[in-house]
Parts: sequence; structure tokens; C-alpha cells
Amino acid sequence: MIDAVICTIGDELLIGQVIDTNSAKLALALEEAGIHVYRMISIGDRREEIASVLTEALREHAIVITTGGLGPTKDDITKAVLCQISGSKGMVEHPGQLEQIHQFLKNRGLDALPSNLAQAQVPDQAEVIVNRLGTAPIMVFRQVQGGGTLYALPGVPHEAVGAIPDVMADIKAHQSLDSILHKNIMVYGIAESALSERIAPWEDALPADMHLAYLPNPLTGIRLRLSIYGGNAQENEKRMETQLETLKQMLGPLVYAHQDSDLQSTVGEMLKKTGKTLSAAESCTGGEIAHLITSVPGSSAYFLGSVTSYAVAVKETVLGVPAPTIETYGVVSSQVAAAMAEGVRKLTGSDYAVSTTGLAGPAGDERNPVGTVWIGVAGPLGTRTVSYCYKNDRKRNIERFAASALNFLRLILQEEL
Amino acid sequence: MIDAVICTIGDELLIGQVIDTNSAKLALALEEAGIHVYRMISIGDRREEIASVLTEALREHAIVITTGGLGPTKDDITKAVLCQISGSKGMVEHPGQLEQIHQFLKNRGLDALPSNLAQAQVPDQAEVIVNRLGTAPIMVFRQVQGGGTLYALPGVPHEAVGAIPDVMADIKAHQSLDSILHKNIMVYGIAESALSERIAPWEDALPADMHLAYLPNPLTGIRLRLSIYGGNAQENEKRMETQLETLKQMLGPLVYAHQDSDLQSTVGEMLKKTGKTLSAAESCTGGEIAHLITSVPGSSAYFLGSVTSYAVAVKETVLGVPAPTIETYGVVSSQVAAAMAEGVRKLTGSDYAVSTTGLAGPAGDERNPVGTVWIGVAGPLGTRTVSYCYKNDRKRNIERFAASALNFLRLILQEEL
Repeated sequence: MIDAVICTIGDELLIGQVIDTNSAKLALALEEAGIHVYRMISIGDRREEIASVLTEALREHAIVITTGGLGPTKDDITKAVLCQISGSKGMVEHPGQLEQIHQFLKNRGLDALPSNLAQAQVPDQAEVIVNRLGTAPIMVFRQVQGGGTLYALPGVPHEAVGAIPDVMADIKAHQSLDSILHKNIMVYGIAESALSERIAPWEDALPADMHLAYLPNPLTGIRLRLSIYGGNAQENEKRMETQLETLKQMLGPLVYAHQDSDLQSTVGEMLKKTGKTLSAAESCTGGEIAHLITSVPGSSAYFLGSVTSYAVAVKETVLGVPAPTIETYGVVSSQVAAAMAEGVRKLTGSDYAVSTTGLAGPAGDERNPVGTVWIGVAGPLGTRTVSYCYKNDRKRNIERFAASALNFLRLILQEEL
Repeated sequence: MIDAVICTIGDELLIGQVIDTNSAKLALALEEAGIHVYRMISIGDRREEIASVLTEALREHAIVITTGGLGPTKDDITKAVLCQISGSKGMVEHPGQLEQIHQFLKNRGLDALPSNLAQAQVPDQAEVIVNRLGTAPIMVFRQVQGGGTLYALPGVPHEAVGAIPDVMADIKAHQSLDSILHKNIMVYGIAESALSERIAPWEDALPADMHLAYLPNPLTGIRLRLSIYGGNAQENEKRMETQLETLKQMLGPLVYAHQDSDLQSTVGEMLKKTGKTLSAAESCTGGEIAHLITSVPGSSAYFLGSVTSYAVAVKETVLGVPAPTIETYGVVSSQVAAAMAEGVRKLTGSDYAVSTTGLAGPAGDERNPVGTVWIGVAGPLGTRTVSYCYKNDRKRNIERFAASALNFLRLILQEEL
């Protein structure tokens, strides 16, 4: 098995001002390609340190991927180090990246400064993959000092993540990798430990070349990834399907997608297919549900809009929640959730509406503990509500509330559409 | 200066299943105490690898902190390695942690399994800090093999973070620490390269013991962090202030905060201080602005609510944007942005209102290219609009639109409040 080292570069990592998300995203892509990540290292913007860590890693590992240290500012000195360790004699200008820099800045109405243009300069031993998302080129150095191949990526997370497909394609073109087949099933509404318990008999009986991974995410639930390593591709497809069928049977409505997906895309597809429309009334989720729904391209086909009713007065005047309902049951109640969903459905004229009212934190109120949420879904066949209580901090509670609301909507749409 | 290495242990890190947040939180605490984090390493649950990485780190660095590998499961083998490298002759039971394990499980209604109780066993060379949040003890090994001190923390994020105060207290009691001073300035509305160019004369003239770092983020702009290493604390505070004053003068209204902050908190503080309220009308940002504003604890004091008007009909019926305005100028226009802001201000009765209408992508329309946004701010002194065009993907455009809207609001509030 080919192995890799991921090295993230930047003082901002070592003083803890930035959480390194690049390493995990790179590791996931490498692992899915059957490449073993041996180690991850974060180092500062120090010339000798960068040189010694990279040289050592390249001596012992087939692939070394760096992110960071390539910006136009003075503290980014990685490129000089790469020039040195790759045995380059100097820097050359890469026309493709230069063109991209001009285009990138022009699109933003910015002048190309000397520091921007300098980013098109690369060590003469570098092959360049043009970075379409920024100004720093992606550089490939093959067999550095007779050892592994080095990929130098920008540190800005969306640029680093955006470079992953190109980097993986290059790796696949230059390394002979074992075959590996992955399939995903998306699950929402069960804790990882309970899920593990429920499918243990099936999981324990998996053949030796199959492996199941649990990939939990607060917004999308648990991605179950089944992998088959090596063997015959066609046969593997069939064996995979058989196993996944059994798994789906065991999990029933907990499964919301048969590929890597999320709840907002799943709900969106159901609505689009049936020509139904949706609106939302949010209190404690404060716009997160609308934000998730509209993050899906094409969501304007089914999403009409939403009201974030943070103030009680807005619940009454805009959404038409009766004041006595709020007085009698409290703002965080089944009755208010139902009235909010019905109110925004009427206001926007949508087929379905989803609502949330709850206490994300830091504090609860006199009626409900912090972490309580009531979710409502109103539709042509009536209104239903459900309640959950989570024990997280504010940010995580908001995420769980929003995801749970989308999942409640998903279950109802599955039933009614 | 005393330096430290942070080592996170666990296969789940190397396959990208988990994003390592422990390292950044530890690094932040170490840096604040004036301890230089030399390197962060993530390694798998492999015995020789753990032993060699830790032994090498302890030989060269005063402090090594590990997280992970201490769970009750079979793949957690860190404790055995610690026993070996610390020269312990065997394991001993720690009564304090044993008591904590019993209490912890009892509180959750769980039986104490043998694997749980075994967690109270520690190498005889370990000093124990009882972990009040879980079952795995925090272990301290001093002068391992004549070298540095090793702190072994649990991997579960809230347990690791919960251990930080005790660990820092122990470090401060045993090391004589140098001073380090960091200050941040938050900047929005300028590209990193242009900022670098603009302040180059000042940055180049910084004394050798001062260092400036650029920390860009699409939602919060650029964090400029100035650091002074060593020296006299009081004097450094003064020198820092002098430098920051010059920097602020150079940047003027681009600066929105004099400490680590974000636009939504800055806007929130301005509103809270003056007792003014806010609402939002979002089209292309689809709830992101409301989500950002309500992510600030206590935002209910000034944020009344918002309308996400994705459908044109919702713009007309809920927000009262005149149909002829939409027909004449198009949905993405200064006039519609203004009418949306004025509409939601009237609807909610807020003092100020911010609005967005634009094209996040993937496509533009017949009048505007993709990436165009019009932002409106309505307030007691009138309504103003501004337009930007960004060239990112949908997700990033939405972020930039939302951040730009908050920044436009911030500039107007600075002027008017």
C-alpha cells in the first residue's frame, strides 16, 4: 500500500488561531483512493524546519502533500524552500497561472500588484496545476531527491479543497493504486453507538475484504461507507449491492439517501420531482434552515422563502401566531411551532412549511431546559410537531435543531408525496 | 523560550474521519502562556510509532502534550507505550480516578465494566490529574528519560479541552516562562495582497522582535495579528499600542474591531449599546445573514427577525416591493434592494434593516453576471444601497454577500449611531 504524509504549514496553526481542516479533507480523499496516511504534521513558517520535515518525509513516503505558506505576504516562505529542496536552479514564470492571476484579479476589479504577479513564479523543477480558485499555483515536484512526489497546495481552505480532485487525478495517473470500491448510505436520527449496536451482527459477518466506516456529521447525520479492497471490479459491484440491500432493510426509514448527500438536497429532490413548494418559519435556528435549503443550487424552484421570527412580536404580526397561544403554552411549545408553520405556509402560499422554536442556549427558560426544540411541519394533509432536547453548546444545538427539522420534513414528505 | 510539541493519537484522524480541534485549543492556551508550539503531529494507534515520536519529542522539547489513545477499547494502546518510555516498572491503581470512574458511570446509569475500571490503572511513574469529565485519567510524566515533561490527555474533545486549565497550571508551576504578547486588528473590505502592499512600509520597519501575521477568513475579513516575543511586558504593551495606532491610522474605516471578533458581533455591540433594533430581508443570501446575526449569544436583544424572500411573489406580498419596481429594474437591482430593506423595516418595526438581492450562482441572468449582489440598508436617516460582484462558487458567494452586507451595515451604523 502506498503511503502519504500531510504537512500543513503556517504559524497561525501553531498558535491555535486556525483549526486545520485541510488535513482531514485531504486524508479522506487519500484514504478513499486506498492510500494510507502515515502521519500529519503542522509546522511554522520557518525555513529550516520546513526543509528538514519535507526532506525527511519525501525520503520515506511516496506522497507528501503540503498546504499553506504560498500566499503573497512576507511570512509565506514555503516556495523558497521548495525551490531549494527540489534542486531547482531558480524561479520561472508559469504563463497559465499568470493568466489566472490576471483574470482572477480583473474579475474582482482589483489591480494586479507586484506581489500578486510574483505568485506566478515557480521553481523550475515544478509542474504546475493552475489554481482556478486563487492566485497561488498548485505545484508538483516528482521524485524529489530520488524519493517521493511533493504536492504543494495553497492554505486557504476552499482553495486547498478545490485542488483535491486535480491532485488525486495526478496521483492516480502516476501511482499504481490497488482498486477500491466505496458506496455510501446516509442515515439520520440515530446515535453512532446505537447504530453500531443495531447492525453489529451484519457488520461482524462482513467478508474480510469489506470494511464499514462511520462518518458522523451534526448537519447530515451518519454517512455509512462500505468499502471493498482489491478483487474484481464487476463482481465487487454485485457483492456491494447485496450487502447494501441487507443494510437498508435493517435501517428502514433512518436511511435518507443511497449516496453521499445531505438532508436539504434530499428534501429538495422530493419537492422538485413532485412540483411542491416549501417555506420556513424559524425562531431558534435563526435562518440556518433557510440557509441550508438555499445552499442547494436550483432551490429557487421549490423554496419560496422564510420568516425568521426572533422577536415575539414578529411571530404575532408577521406569522399570525395568536398571542393567547404564546401566553398559554409559552413560545417554545408544540402549539407555537404548529402556528408558525401554518402561518408562514399561508403567508407564502407554499405547499409545505417547516418551523422551529426552541432554546439554543446559553440558557433555558422557566418552562424548558436549554437544548429544547419544537419542530412543526404544515402541509396539505395537516400539521405535525415533534420535540427534541440536545445537550450541546449554542452553535451545535442550532445545527442539530436545523438538521432535525429537515429530517422531520423529509419523513413527512416521504409519507405524503 | 520554552517550546512544546502537541501529538494527537488515533487512526480516526489519519483517515480524515475526525477533524482535530484539540491541537488548536491546546496551542492557543500554550501560546497565551508564552510557550512556543514547535510542531503538531497526528499519528495512528501504532505502538512503535507512538514510542518513537514521543521519545524524540521529549528529547528535544520541554513539554509534550498528547491527546487520545487512552480509551477502554483494544485499539487504544498509548498507555502501554507511556509505561514503557517513562521507565515505569508496572501499573498501579489511582484511587482518585477509580472513584471518579464509579461516579461518572453511576451518574449516567451505567454499570462499571472491567474495561472501565482498568482505566484507573496508570504507569507507576505517572502523576495523575483526575479527569472530572470522563473515565480516562490525565497523566503527567516528568523529565522522561532525562528530557521533557509529558502530559497525556484524553482524546474526546470536551475532556481534552476541560483538562487544559489543570495542565496549564501545572506547567506554570514547573517552568519559568518568557512573555509573549499578541494583539489583533480586524479588517474588512480589502484583499490580502492589497493590504500587504498598503502597509508594507510600516511592516518592513517593524523591530526584529515584532511579527505581523495575516489571517484571512471569508466571513470575517482579515485578522492582522501583531506579536512581540520576550522583553519587558509593560514596555511591550506600550510599544504594541504605538505600532497599532499607526496601523489603525493607515487603515481607517477598514478596521472594524481592535480584538479578535467578527462583523456580526461588532454590529451587535453597536446596536446593543444604542438600544437600536435590526431586521433583515434576504434573497440570495437565503438566511445566512440572519444565521450569522443570531449565532451571537444575546442577539435577541436587538435582532427582531427577517424575511427570506426567495420567490418574487414573497418579495411583493410579504415585503411589499412594488411589482412595477421589479419589472422595471429587475429583481437584482438597487431599487429592489432598497424596497426590500424598507419593507422588512416596516414589517418588523425595527430601527435598521439590511437586505440582499443577487445571483449566488451557478448562473447569472439576462441583466447581471453571476456573483452580483445589491445590498440595501434602511434606517431612520434614509436608505442606501451598494453593489459588488464576486467570482466564487455558490457557497462562497453567499458567504461574501452576507459578510459584505454586514460590513455595509457596520459602516452606516458607525456613521449614524
